[in-house]
Amino acid sequence: MVHKLILLRHGQSDWNEKNLFTGWVDVKLSKKGEEEAANGGKLLKESGLKPDILYTSKLTRAIETANIALNEADRLFIPVVRSWRLNERHYGALQGKDKAETLAQYGQEQFMTWRRSYDVPPPPIEDHSKFSQFGDERYSDIAPEALPKTESLALVIDRLLPFWQDVIAKDLLDGKTVLIAAHGNSLRGLVKHLDNISDKDISALNIPTGIPLVYELDDNLKPIKPSYYLDPEAAAAGAAAVAAQGQKKK
Amino acid sequence: MVHKLILLRHGQSDWNEKNLFTGWVDVKLSKKGEEEAANGGKLLKESGLKPDILYTSKLTRAIETANIALNEADRLFIPVVRSWRLNERHYGALQGKDKAETLAQYGQEQFMTWRRSYDVPPPPIEDHSKFSQFGDERYSDIAPEALPKTESLALVIDRLLPFWQDVIAKDLLDGKTVLIAAHGNSLRGLVKHLDNISDKDISALNIPTGIPLVYELDDNLKPIKPSYYLDPEAAAAGAAAVAAQGQKKK
Repeated sequence: MVHKLILLRHGQSDWNEKNLFTGWVDVKLSKKGEEEAANGGKLLKESGLKPDILYTSKLTRAIETANIALNEADRLFIPVVRSWRLNERHYGALQGKDKAETLAQYGQEQFMTWRRSYDVPPPPIEDHSKFSQFGDERYSDIAPEALPKTESLALVIDRLLPFWQDVIAKDLLDGKTVLIAAHGNSLRGLVKHLDNISDKDISALNIPTGIPLVYELDDNLKPIKPSYYLDPEAAAAGAAAVAAQGQKKK
Repeated sequence: MVHKLILLRHGQSDWNEKNLFTGWVDVKLSKKGEEEAANGGKLLKESGLKPDILYTSKLTRAIETANIALNEADRLFIPVVRSWRLNERHYGALQGKDKAETLAQYGQEQFMTWRRSYDVPPPPIEDHSKFSQFGDERYSDIAPEALPKTESLALVIDRLLPFWQDVIAKDLLDGKTVLIAAHGNSLRGLVKHLDNISDKDISALNIPTGIPLVYELDDNLKPIKPSYYLDPEAAAAGAAAVAAQGQKKK
């Protein structure tokens, strides 16, 4: 049996537009982000893929993206599960900081280490920071010790995999087509796992926004063929744009 | 302990606008309906009420309403449960028919009997009708015998109460503030139950669209005071507009 998994990275947010490190800060989609989400939904509809269940992070920009896309695809009625384990990477003390200013302040090497190294997290965020999620009710039902104050991609994968293996996997193995609406780094973590990409090579992988990425998996939940974007040309252009992000003030 | 329940009737749909009997036919919100939903979300935010969980029907117009309202209220992250038991009343063979033409064809008495009698359902819809939900995948996980082909308000209450008593009640008793986004008749059914309204009197009750209706319930889930709309003046005008619906071609 072929198990179908669709990954959807949220469209542009208010803070992407402003070139700020976002992480767990809960910002909304920009107008452009809403349009990207609608386009993702149209691609989904045209593809004939019919998600049976939606997984999202606890962050508004991923949820908005899914809601807009599923409305376009006439699939708003499917069940929904939200989990912090699909959240964006926690950017620690960088959350709320301007990317270009951070680059100028710390230099290219430190900047790229924080953005792209596999296992070096930024400094942790202070609980009293206005960009901390300390005390946020949306995380009140999980053990406080589980809540990150900063994360590397390695730490994202550590907290993501249990949810993939125990929860999402079950729906796939039950024959459901699963849609995951999430973030650049949580999706990179999942793609690294599915495609068995090395710690080194993952730094070069960029997932474009708003374009559904489809996996067809065997009964071991391993890809039976390379994953593909529903609009490959737009995906290539989008990945290049993500790679260039933070290099210059927009 | 006071248990808080918020009911939200979806805003105007494409078919409300066209004055057609909708029932289980899955139409979208009109532009006006989207605005009503956003206004409902603003009222929610201003009220300080914070829904912890959302229940919706399986119909797009109720889901869209909830998504728009919760985005306005910055509460998109809450968990969501969808159930056909919150669906609009099934309008049987009237689904897809023009209300004014139906009134002209069958006369005021028969028309009002179908619209407002407590326990007289319209004729059942034929499975092959293009307005039937026979074979709709969104209902594929429930026993076929449970799926209605027409409903009176009494039948709506029969299928709604088990879900209220077993599922929604549990969240309220656990201390959660519950938001239900649903339909004119499924919400009338719930209000009839909560306020112990007679079979006769319920026909005069009209719930306006897009204005949150708040119940404060005791540990027996009985109201400790009269329910109230977050915008009472707009609610009164909205209820009058609903009462006048179908009386004339728009």
